[in-house]
Amino acid sequence: MNASVLRNAKLDEAELRALKSEIEDFNWDYGDVLDGNRLGEWPNFFTEDAFYRIRSRENADADMPVGLVHCEGRPMMVDRVFALMHTEMFEPRYYRHVIGTARVLDVTAQGVISARANYALYETILDQDTRLMQAGQYVDEFVRAGGRLLLKRRECIYDSTIVHTALIYPV
Amino acid sequence: MNASVLRNAKLDEAELRALKSEIEDFNWDYGDVLDGNRLGEWPNFFTEDAFYRIRSRENADADMPVGLVHCEGRPMMVDRVFALMHTEMFEPRYYRHVIGTARVLDVTAQGVISARANYALYETILDQDTRLMQAGQYVDEFVRAGGRLLLKRRECIYDSTIVHTALIYPV
Amino acid sequence: MNASVLRNAKLDEAELRALKSEIEDFNWDYGDVLDGNRLGEWPNFFTEDAFYRIRSRENADADMPVGLVHCEGRPMMVDRVFALMHTEMFEPRYYRHVIGTARVLDVTAQGVISARANYALYETILDQDTRLMQAGQYVDEFVRAGGRLLLKRRECIYDSTIVHTALIYPV
Repeated sequence: MNASVLRNAKLDEAELRALKSEIEDFNWDYGDVLDGNRLGEWPNFFTEDAFYRIRSRENADADMPVGLVHCEGRPMMVDRVFALMHTEMFEPRYYRHVIGTARVLDVTAQGVISARANYALYETILDQDTRLMQAGQYVDEFVRAGGRLLLKRRECIYDSTIVHTALIYPV
Repeated sequence: MNASVLRNAKLDEAELRALKSEIEDFNWDYGDVLDGNRLGEWPNFFTEDAFYRIRSRENADADMPVGLVHCEGRPMMVDRVFALMHTEMFEPRYYRHVIGTARVLDVTAQGVISARANYALYETILDQDTRLMQAGQYVDEFVRAGGRLLLKRRECIYDSTIVHTALIYPV
Repeated sequence: MNASVLRNAKLDEAELRALKSEIEDFNWDYGDVLDGNRLGEWPNFFTEDAFYRIRSRENADADMPVGLVHCEGRPMMVDRVFALMHTEMFEPRYYRHVIGTARVLDVTAQGVISARANYALYETILDQDTRLMQAGQYVDEFVRAGGRLLLKRRECIYDSTIVHTALIYPV
């Protein structure tokens, strides 16, 4: 987790600022798709071979690979979304992402952008108080394809040691 | 709520980034005025004919116009503020806005800027725990007047289905 | 707290935007060091003579100097960190900072940058729900030394009127 010591040497400062701003827009749109329950659009944020995982901080710190959700490749994401859209096993609820500023940590010669952002995810179940569902961090690798950013890898590391819901929904 | 598909074609990327940054400053100042209990300054963020509403996500999704607070025009905001400043019907409390990054979605030929931002609003009542009062989204239209941004329309869409307080205070 | 009326006249708008972005990166790194439990790196964010205080909003508003934590100079910070790293008097827990956008308020002729940012700090104790530990505001003065920003002064003003933990950890 030695994020702050990594510093990019390949882009100049203005380019890094532009990239930070672009990733913030990406993250906002990503959260908005999930909050707006437009699940079918979610896989579009990823490359075909992307890796997506929701993993507890405990497991991430211990280097344990087990995650709550684990998708290798966009087809697995599409399957997951299809299943979620055709199952209504849990009470209707609202989600709201409040995502902090993005931090660009590295850009490789191959154009892989390492970035992170912290998030708070709030959940509202009908007739219950809005509550914090998860505080966590996106640990990301972006690539640029056809002019736009895509996630090659997103790991959602959440702090909670108790998980209340089935949490089959992407974060 | 198909926010992510709207994309601006009228400003170049550097101008959009500048606008995003400027709106983030605007939102910060807006939250700071409310958090600092400087209510008298709140109407100054709006145009003379501005529309302001605090509405539940449930009503917004169902296209129901009913909101907790509904102001048409700055004079109604000034009245509301005057009433609030001269009524002390509820316990003293602190508010704190934590507002995420701003997302510019559109700029019309007439210069109307559509933008959104997600927020968490925390409330602290004396001798009680700080608690989340509202998670929500600002759905905004800005115009530029005399060099500075002003809200022509701000709708605060909150997720909660339970409202604890009278919530007569602007968000 | 009349933050919104202070406006900088010494830097042009592009320079202010660059500074805002740079401070957001600084704040992200700062939070990441604390969240990642890399306490030994925390004093490196400060100048040698820096002032650091965690103070309640109640005391700040009343101009009472008493704070939960009060460090004058980096050596006091190093001492505090050393003590914390060699005492394990409290249960293991995770922290997570979600810090909002930065607001640059002033830059003096001497290069002292006044800036603020709101934060939510979440705490997770093993086998308990993640909870909001503090909502608050960083009230900062930065200077530039050797090309990078350093805090000459950071005050963490928290809203809570109840403090649950010993809270000897920096915020």
